[in-house]
Amino acid sequence: MTRALSVTRAENFPDWYQAIVKEADLAENSPTRGCMIIKPWGYGMWELIQAQLDAMIKDTGHDNYYFPLLIPMGFIAKEADHVDGFAKEMAVVTHHRLKQIDGELKPDPEAELTEPMIIRPTSETIIGDAFSRWVKSYRDLPVLMNQWANVVRWEMRTRLFLRTAEFLWQEGHTAHIDRADAMEHTLRMLEVYRSFVEDVLALPVVAGEKPENERFPGADNTFSIEAMMQDGKALQAGTSHYLGTHFSSAQNIRYQDQAGQMQLAHTTSWGTSTRMIGGVIMTHGDDDGLKTPPAIAPKQIVIIPILRDKPEDADVLAYARALAGELKQASFMDRRVRAHVDDKPGKSADKRWDWVRRGAPLILEIGPRDAANGQVSFMRRDRLRDGDKVQSHQLPREAFVAQAPGLLAEIQAGLYADAKKRLTDNIKTDVTSFAELEAYFGAAEDEDKGFKGWVLAPWSKPTGAALDEVDKRLKALKLTLRNIPLDQPPTTGTCLFTGAPAVESVLIARAY
Amino acid sequence: MTRALSVTRAENFPDWYQAIVKEADLAENSPTRGCMIIKPWGYGMWELIQAQLDAMIKDTGHDNYYFPLLIPMGFIAKEADHVDGFAKEMAVVTHHRLKQIDGELKPDPEAELTEPMIIRPTSETIIGDAFSRWVKSYRDLPVLMNQWANVVRWEMRTRLFLRTAEFLWQEGHTAHIDRADAMEHTLRMLEVYRSFVEDVLALPVVAGEKPENERFPGADNTFSIEAMMQDGKALQAGTSHYLGTHFSSAQNIRYQDQAGQMQLAHTTSWGTSTRMIGGVIMTHGDDDGLKTPPAIAPKQIVIIPILRDKPEDADVLAYARALAGELKQASFMDRRVRAHVDDKPGKSADKRWDWVRRGAPLILEIGPRDAANGQVSFMRRDRLRDGDKVQSHQLPREAFVAQAPGLLAEIQAGLYADAKKRLTDNIKTDVTSFAELEAYFGAAEDEDKGFKGWVLAPWSKPTGAALDEVDKRLKALKLTLRNIPLDQPPTTGTCLFTGAPAVESVLIARAY
Repeated sequence: MTRALSVTRAENFPDWYQAIVKEADLAENSPTRGCMIIKPWGYGMWELIQAQLDAMIKDTGHDNYYFPLLIPMGFIAKEADHVDGFAKEMAVVTHHRLKQIDGELKPDPEAELTEPMIIRPTSETIIGDAFSRWVKSYRDLPVLMNQWANVVRWEMRTRLFLRTAEFLWQEGHTAHIDRADAMEHTLRMLEVYRSFVEDVLALPVVAGEKPENERFPGADNTFSIEAMMQDGKALQAGTSHYLGTHFSSAQNIRYQDQAGQMQLAHTTSWGTSTRMIGGVIMTHGDDDGLKTPPAIAPKQIVIIPILRDKPEDADVLAYARALAGELKQASFMDRRVRAHVDDKPGKSADKRWDWVRRGAPLILEIGPRDAANGQVSFMRRDRLRDGDKVQSHQLPREAFVAQAPGLLAEIQAGLYADAKKRLTDNIKTDVTSFAELEAYFGAAEDEDKGFKGWVLAPWSKPTGAALDEVDKRLKALKLTLRNIPLDQPPTTGTCLFTGAPAVESVLIARAY
Repeated sequence: MTRALSVTRAENFPDWYQAIVKEADLAENSPTRGCMIIKPWGYGMWELIQAQLDAMIKDTGHDNYYFPLLIPMGFIAKEADHVDGFAKEMAVVTHHRLKQIDGELKPDPEAELTEPMIIRPTSETIIGDAFSRWVKSYRDLPVLMNQWANVVRWEMRTRLFLRTAEFLWQEGHTAHIDRADAMEHTLRMLEVYRSFVEDVLALPVVAGEKPENERFPGADNTFSIEAMMQDGKALQAGTSHYLGTHFSSAQNIRYQDQAGQMQLAHTTSWGTSTRMIGGVIMTHGDDDGLKTPPAIAPKQIVIIPILRDKPEDADVLAYARALAGELKQASFMDRRVRAHVDDKPGKSADKRWDWVRRGAPLILEIGPRDAANGQVSFMRRDRLRDGDKVQSHQLPREAFVAQAPGLLAEIQAGLYADAKKRLTDNIKTDVTSFAELEAYFGAAEDEDKGFKGWVLAPWSKPTGAALDEVDKRLKALKLTLRNIPLDQPPTTGTCLFTGAPAVESVLIARAY
């Protein structure tokens, strides 16, 4: 049985991931250690993610700003937990000039900065500083802002899209009058992420709160949405943090309340990144490549004219172009349908497989007979094969044009439904002891052997040293606490870790 | 005579520029030396610039990619002229971790990079490296790519939007089979810039070739578009470079031609940046603030409901919102009209002047009488005053809605026409000697005293040392050679600098 990718998921899931990123032409490694080159099909998805998520962020009252890439080192030092969390992995700028010294290009010793700067790993500190200047009175609150930016975190083990030294993201930052308003906003943005990721990326997720050991450095509460990949591992697809008054104390974000008293503002931050594309790949990929959700497919309908260097080629091309023109008039999810004629030189069979690997939702092959008979031959990427055989469908041109938006909607919904079934079928709730947990997941070295789902287990919500101990025992099995689902039934039974009565349930999984 | 800004153009043009950037809430200085915080009205313009220019770049066959922010130092060293041009002003990353040492946060000496990295000042080197891997055969050419990114150049004297250490831009990079194809593309992109800047930013420009002393480091030919600011100075609004085989030799971008021989590709690059916003301000600003061209106004029609804490407020608000809804159905320049109800708390007179300073093209003040009579009271930002008096117009609601797109088009065209007249009226062509040139522009220290236009002067196109001498004489007067206009009548007479017979005419101006 031959498939379009060089490695199958069953053979080796991590290798399959690398193969699909390369063979679907999404991204590649760059000569800059740990950084990627995002190629048009991958970047096109990011552009569509940006456009649609940006609209949702603006609809919830946020304005876009742009803050500096470089942050004076002293800013980072102000929030203690934040330093501990990020100081380990930042790119540090120490010089502002290169110089030829003994025939070699080197940082110019005379151009050393008095204060080093770091490349933003996240922007709480420099944005907090601006908030401290902008916020004077309760009337100035809330401040609701967002930025689209690149950030750098020095990662040792990198994987394209999933973990790279530089990545692209959006980071929202807000300041509020009190805890209640800030917490409400933290959860509102988590809900924006949930609906975006489910509706646009077709990634079903579990929204919940992170246990304290998994919190963002400097946060009082961190919430996440977690998606299940096809190997059963969890991928954190977005986080939203209630930062309490940690950053407002460090940055002096104070306002005069209605009674004339000075108060600390309460802040939030929340982010999603190019990592989501890794989640899309590991959720919607198969052994023929990616099935790109129509909502983020840079080209939703690809028309391949079958050309044979014959006079009828002109008719085929004209037919294909007219068809693309008609399809572009239609709308899907409030945007014009993205139809594309692939008229580059090359064999049409090669083109077919290129588009299958990239996962264009609908792939049309138009030959002279289609053009003459006014019909359309097409493949659905989501139902590419019947057994081994590639399935082609025929429809009269008018019928295809009329049905195209509906087909895209069906594909989008189908991708979500498949992933949703995988998620709900694979959260195990009957694990009652750590030994059972260990037996289910197996040893750490078996991490990549076979599918393992998640475990939703009762726990007593240990904190401090007791939680550290839990974390240690889990880490030995390469497991992590993902989140405490917001939506969960009352918990009974005893804690898997402490034996004490359980107060809630926590998701446990291997993760990216 | 009172105007809405704290400084007038006549009083002090540079101070007026700073005042408008601040008072129209476009951007502000950040604690990171030389970097700016772009605020929503400024960033919103950039988003509209991006969206519209991106469409033009894609329509000319380019795909968007994203390349790493950090470039290994060795890459920069490969192209000799490029090193000389950029090595002076780059941010150098030397460490990947901070550490508390004796209670102070410092770059961790154990985390020094083996090879320093620089933050991209431009990406020819790292993109050229990718081209060398992607290009094998003549069939792979041309490669047409673009990226939207931030870049850093260590500038000593910075000015918001005009010259900042970090700025946002797009950089296009292409590889071609030969000089003819690459040069044609260089000029095609210059033309894309010209039409974008004229049609969207309403900035009339002169397109031309830079003399060799003003070329991009590593280019064979550099072309620019130059706009005239209200103080007469020139602002380079975009550049397009034919790079010959300099970067393809340095990066080994070779292809097998049809005869099976290995050939060097010919490359181009071209860029525009947030600097354009500085050009928009200095072209379309007046003493009341900015007149934002409708094509890039984040809000084109602002509706201020006049609220008085009375029962009829509800009617006024409902009327304003319904009106905004109707206006948003209309289109201007292929996009939905951006109408906005400013219902924030605050006095309506303050709001009016905020929007005047920002330059919303149409500003509506809706009171109970307007709501009751179904009419609209509005100001045109481009014709704000009759003498000192602010002019308000009335129209029945239906008529205003019907006319709104036409009014926006009229404002867009009017801004362009005013600037075009300024440009054409102020290019002096009768200067026949260096002494006359000196007399016209005055001494260097008079740079900011009064309006000076440009001089289009015949020259003999000196090169090398002779050109350096010309450059030196001009610099002493704070003048520069802007470009040799592509569209110019045959030149007669003698060179202003050398006395030799002139071969073409060159634009001379003070510049940003």
